This record gives sequence, C-alpha cells and structure tokens, in this order.
Amino acid sequence: MATPETELLDVERIRDDFPILEREIGGKQLVYLDNAATSQTPEPVVDAIADYYRETNANIHRGIHQLSQEASVAYEEAHDRLAEFIGAEGREEMVFVRNTTEAENLIAYAWGLNELEPGDEVVMSEMEHHSSLVTWQQIADRTGAEIQFIEVDDDGHLDMDHAAELITDDTQMVSVVHVSNTLGTINPVGDLADLAHDHDAYIFVDGAQSVPTMPVDVKAMDADFFAFSGHKMVGPTGIGGLYGKQHLLEEMDPFLYGGGMIRKVEFDETTWHDLPWKYEAGTPAIAQGIALAEAADYLDDIGMERIERHENALAQYAIDRLSEFDDIDIMGPSAGEQRGGLVSFTLDSVHPHDISEILNDYSVAIRAGDHCTQPLHDKMGKTASARASFYIYNTREEIDALVGALDAARDLFR
Amino acid sequence: MATPETELLDVERIRDDFPILEREIGGKQLVYLDNAATSQTPEPVVDAIADYYRETNANIHRGIHQLSQEASVAYEEAHDRLAEFIGAEGREEMVFVRNTTEAENLIAYAWGLNELEPGDEVVMSEMEHHSSLVTWQQIADRTGAEIQFIEVDDDGHLDMDHAAELITDDTQMVSVVHVSNTLGTINPVGDLADLAHDHDAYIFVDGAQSVPTMPVDVKAMDADFFAFSGHKMVGPTGIGGLYGKQHLLEEMDPFLYGGGMIRKVEFDETTWHDLPWKYEAGTPAIAQGIALAEAADYLDDIGMERIERHENALAQYAIDRLSEFDDIDIMGPSAGEQRGGLVSFTLDSVHPHDISEILNDYSVAIRAGDHCTQPLHDKMGKTASARASFYIYNTREEIDALVGALDAARDLFR
Repeated sequence: MATPETELLDVERIRDDFPILEREIGGKQLVYLDNAATSQTPEPVVDAIADYYRETNANIHRGIHQLSQEASVAYEEAHDRLAEFIGAEGREEMVFVRNTTEAENLIAYAWGLNELEPGDEVVMSEMEHHSSLVTWQQIADRTGAEIQFIEVDDDGHLDMDHAAELITDDTQMVSVVHVSNTLGTINPVGDLADLAHDHDAYIFVDGAQSVPTMPVDVKAMDADFFAFSGHKMVGPTGIGGLYGKQHLLEEMDPFLYGGGMIRKVEFDETTWHDLPWKYEAGTPAIAQGIALAEAADYLDDIGMERIERHENALAQYAIDRLSEFDDIDIMGPSAGEQRGGLVSFTLDSVHPHDISEILNDYSVAIRAGDHCTQPLHDKMGKTASARASFYIYNTREEIDALVGALDAARDLFR
Repeated sequence: MATPETELLDVERIRDDFPILEREIGGKQLVYLDNAATSQTPEPVVDAIADYYRETNANIHRGIHQLSQEASVAYEEAHDRLAEFIGAEGREEMVFVRNTTEAENLIAYAWGLNELEPGDEVVMSEMEHHSSLVTWQQIADRTGAEIQFIEVDDDGHLDMDHAAELITDDTQMVSVVHVSNTLGTINPVGDLADLAHDHDAYIFVDGAQSVPTMPVDVKAMDADFFAFSGHKMVGPTGIGGLYGKQHLLEEMDPFLYGGGMIRKVEFDETTWHDLPWKYEAGTPAIAQGIALAEAADYLDDIGMERIERHENALAQYAIDRLSEFDDIDIMGPSAGEQRGGLVSFTLDSVHPHDISEILNDYSVAIRAGDHCTQPLHDKMGKTASARASFYIYNTREEIDALVGALDAARDLFR
C-alpha cells in the first residue's frame, strides 16, 4: 500500500528543533497535522526572537544610538533576505505586513480603491481564500467594479479555458491563490500571469501555502504582487511579506499613514519615504521581521526542493491510505498528481467537526471547517471538511495514526 | 540641586529582569534613555513569547484540537486583560492592532472615509504625532473634510480657549494625543472629550505615551476611541490595542477583510463576526497578543501609580539638571509641573543629531530628530530636538551620565 519510502528529510533531527512536538495530550504524543493553519516554530527562530529582546531591542529608522543602528540594520536586511527567498530583487520589493490578509487589503485599498471604476473587472477563482475573496468583494462594491470567478472542476483544477474567457480588456486585476489551502491544487500562476498581462491587467498571487512548501520565484512566474505569511513557514505570528514590482510600488499611493513612511510632513502636506518603508507606517513588527529572516535560513538549510518532495510524498501517502475507505471523499487533485502537502476530506457518516474532536482524543490535531473557503465548499455541496496538512517534521507513521483515529471515529458513529 | 530622593520603585530589582541593560557599548554600560521610542522587554514577557511557541502555538478561532483551544483561550483572554488595563468593559471593546498607527488608520478608514464629507471638520492639535496627523490629513483630502489645529503655547500647553472655539457643530472628530511624545505635556483629554461630545463629535485619544506611564481609564475620560502600542509598555513589537465604545465598534464597517472577521461568506455577499474579531482579519499576532497580557501583568505588579510618580520624578530631576546650563533650551511644561517621563531639548551650539552621536560614544542612548512631530518643531523654530525618555528601570545616576556626556558634546563643538 505505502509507496516506497525515500527518506527525503532527516525528520528525526528536524523534530529535535520543535519541542512542542513532544507534548502529550491525554497521555498520547501530539500528532500535529494542522500545518496549513500554522506551522510550528523551531528553536533557532524562538532564539532569534528572545535574543533580539535580550540584546538589540530598539526602535529603528530614526535612531542614532548603537541599539537602534543594530536593530535597523537587522530589520532592513531581513527584507533583503525574504526578497531573496522568493526571487525578488531586494528590499525595495519586499514590504513586511502582518499576514497575507493584510497584503491583500493593502493592494485592494491602495491600488483597487483608487483605480477601479464601474465597468472594470477583478478576476478571481472559486478556490480563493476569504482573505482575497471578501476583500475584493468589498472593494468592488465600493468602486462599482465587478468580480468574476474562474470555475474549479471536480478534481480541483482551474478551468483554464474559462480563465481565458473571463480575462479580457475589462480585467484590471487577477487575484489567485498559488496553492489552494483546501484542495492542495497547485495553480498555473505563470499562465494566469501571461493571460493577465496580455490584457494589461495585474496579477496578485496568494502564496500563503506555497512559500512554506516549495521553491518560489516571483520573477519567473511574473507576478505583479505576491504575498505570504511568516507563521506558516516556521516564522513568528504577526509578520508576513508583500512582494510588488518596484515600479508598481513606486507608482501606488501608500496604504497606512504615520511615522516611518513619510519624508516631510507639514500641517497641510506630506511626501513619502523610499520603498519599502513607504508602506510600513508606525513602529513595525521588528522582532518578528528579524526572526522571519531566521525562518527563511532554517528552511533554506533544509532545502526548499527537498521540502517540496517531502510534502508531496506525504500527501500521496495520505491519499493512498485514505483511499482504502469507500466512505471517505478526498477533495482536490487525484492520487499521483503533484500537490501541496495537505489533504481535505469528508467521511460519510461523521461531521468534520466530530472527526476533529474525536481525533483530538487520539492526540491527532487536524482542522475541521470551511478553511476560509466557504463558497468553494458550497459549490462542492459540503458545509465543511476535515483537513490534514503536513510539514517538514511529519512522518508516515503520523498519517497512520490519523487513519487509525479515523477508524475509531467511524466506529463511534456507526 | 536634586530634589529629595524618594525611592519609588525598586529599580535594582526591576533591572534584573532586563538583561539588555547590562550591555556595554565601547566599554561603558548602556544608559538607555530612548523609552518613548520603545521600552525594553523584561524576562517574563520574553518567556511568555518563547513558552507560547514551545508549548501552545496553533492557529486560533476555528480549531477544535487542544493546541488551538489553548491558543484561542489565551489570545481571547489577553483582550480582556488589556481591556481591564485601560478601564474598558471587556474584549468586545479591545481590538488588537500592530501599533497605535494602525489603530489611527483603522478609525480613519473605517469611520472617516465612510462618514466624512465636505463641510465636516476634524480637530487635532499642533502637537499630534505623524500617525494621526498624516492619517487624518490624507482622509480629509479624500473626503473633502477640513482639519483644524488647536494651538500649542510656548510652554507646550494646548490653548483650551482655542479648542473651545475650534470645536463646533461642524466637528465630527477630535483626535488628540494624551501625553505628547515631544513635549511631555499631559493633555486634558477629559475636557476635550466633553467639548467634542457637546457638539456630537467623537474623540480619538492617542495613548501611546500614556498607557505605559500612568494609570489610564478610558471610561473616566469618556474617550470614544483610544489607542496604544505594546512595544512602549514592556510588551513585544507588532502588537497594540484599539479601544472603542462597543456601540461604535458595532455600528462601524470593518477595516481589513479576510478570514476570522466574517460569519458567512458567499460569492456575492458577506456578514461580519462578533466584536472584536470583526476588526481582526487573518491570523493575528497571537504570540504577541498573549505576551502583551503578560506585559500588563508586569506593569500592574509594579503599580501604575508608582510608575507615574517615578516617571515624573525622573523628568523633574532631568529638568533640574539640564536647567543648570544657559545654552540648553528645554521644550514643554516648566519644572514642577506634572508631565510624562521625557524631556526634549536643544543645545545652542550642537545639532541634536551630533548630540545623539556623541552621547552614543558615552553609551547614552537618546533619540534625536523630530520625533514624528515635524510641524510642531517647525512652529517652534526648530528642525529637530534631542529627547531623553525614562522608564521603570532608569535612575538619577543615568540622568547624571546624560548631563556629563552633554558636557563632553559641548566641549567638542566649542
């Protein structure tokens, strides 16, 4: 049943960096399969945070004293590091935000609210996360623009013919998810970028699930904007990145106003600071930004190509194991197809929330709900699903534990 | 010379919690007097962050598994704790934001952009921080509203007669700083709230400098909105609080859109979550929010009344010492008057940036610049000032070190 084991990652060594994985719940060791919601945080990243507060902590940008100089350099270099991590040019193209959601809102407000008008269209997909779906929905409402949705087929693929139909000269923005957090589908964002650019539209790519799990090159895919969250890539909560092509970030108005993003303020006029600071108002999440660079180092030390293969191997193994059961419906691409490291499913007789609750008794942590893709679930005739999502420290044995606990859930509701 | 020493705080014991204060720069122990920019972070807060990642880390709100339950409870209770810290009712009135700046923008966008129109006025003061000044300036520009500035007199006080003239039935919002980050002035925000409410206007109070340094009661001052930053109150970077009266937060539209802030999403419509989650889109700064509650505990254990007296005592001592020199011009209220724990000044012959640089050679960290109040500096005929700001771990001896280093700066430029 199990596909041949190829040890892609030294999982045992990696697990040593994550003390939380030693936790026991109800006497059983934690099996953490909720990584698409948030990844765990390794010691080097926790240490980077603590070291910052114990050794360097100071406000940045405007300080002349030693601590402020050190904090400023570290915070600024963290932008370069994250830019490099996703293939951007440098700090000018890397704005730090709280999370992917804030990045979506930044573009929707700073670009969309100013540029969209009646007759304009924003093209999204039916598998978008609420962070983009709700945001563009609201901005479209305010500006009179319309939203179109690229259809998703039963196997969880975008209908690219439909995309080619929808993306026209009326399209101003295409906003799509790189890897679906519900289906695991890896979308052809490069092809969608070409379609968008053929019609002088921009493309915003939601990389929340891709940046942690595969090599990403924003230049190769030709994204105009690209966003990700630190807490899903072994980084801290409260920090994420927004990539934008430099000329676009230069042309756009700022979003949040305040200190740090201005050059000159008078009682009646203000001019803006250089990139990326123009988009970072107020004292930013300094400790978190510096620690995010440590997270990027941590992942690169393991190797993003190897992480990608490990993720796919675990997803395939999970699909194999879950496919043993007729009463389990797996969402998204079929077995064998490359996908992100997550599998959403439903079990005929048991509601996903009950699955999650029973699994918790077995110390198996998964997510149950709509995964912030309610409309996609509606379309698929489901109110919710159970989602197991994998990361660098997960093993096949943990997927076996998941399947074993599902047996128990099934028995309980029989 | 020095006012009689009354040991208000056990500074020696407090300093043990801040290992960064043991740092030596150029062989001399750090004298950290840049607390109005950011405070240092005590071990219990650093531990709270590290413990979170090592023991509890999970995404919140929608998770059924144990870690998610624990993280959710801790994060939600942190809202209650911070609400209590400033005299609010509970979590419904406490939105977590990145910093005070984001709170200003939240209200300016979610309320101002929707409600302001030509003929409306926003009344601020000449001592506002860029975070409110620039934000309301931009929102006024977009909506056609006008901004009026309450004058500041030479002693750094608001001209309350001018305030009474400016605040009229055309006023929709009064946005004022509680304690000036440049002058140290403690503004009569309760009186300003009364003036605002007499004309059915709202009042937004910037509490970035007050919450860390004195007891604050938002109900007693009758603020409609009130904001503060965690990193200035021994908390982490990347977190802060926005208080809003519950009925106002209920009536207002959301600001950032995304997961966590919605109740029901369809392809064409969305309804919002309960307070305060309606205003917290995406995965929030969970670790930072939980650690902020620890920061509030830390300050309450010392006692906010005692902190207030300590702050004022150090400020008075600094004014006494700096007043010994004819070539030093101290900004803000005169000696003897209650003020926040900071003193901004200029030295006739030495530019503030040079002061800060020379002081750094003596391991004394102060801030030089406009402290995000450029227009106030313009009005006072200064391009910049030097600012020494004090906190719970500072001593009179450190102020003596400051004065000694100023002597050296003066000698160098003679």
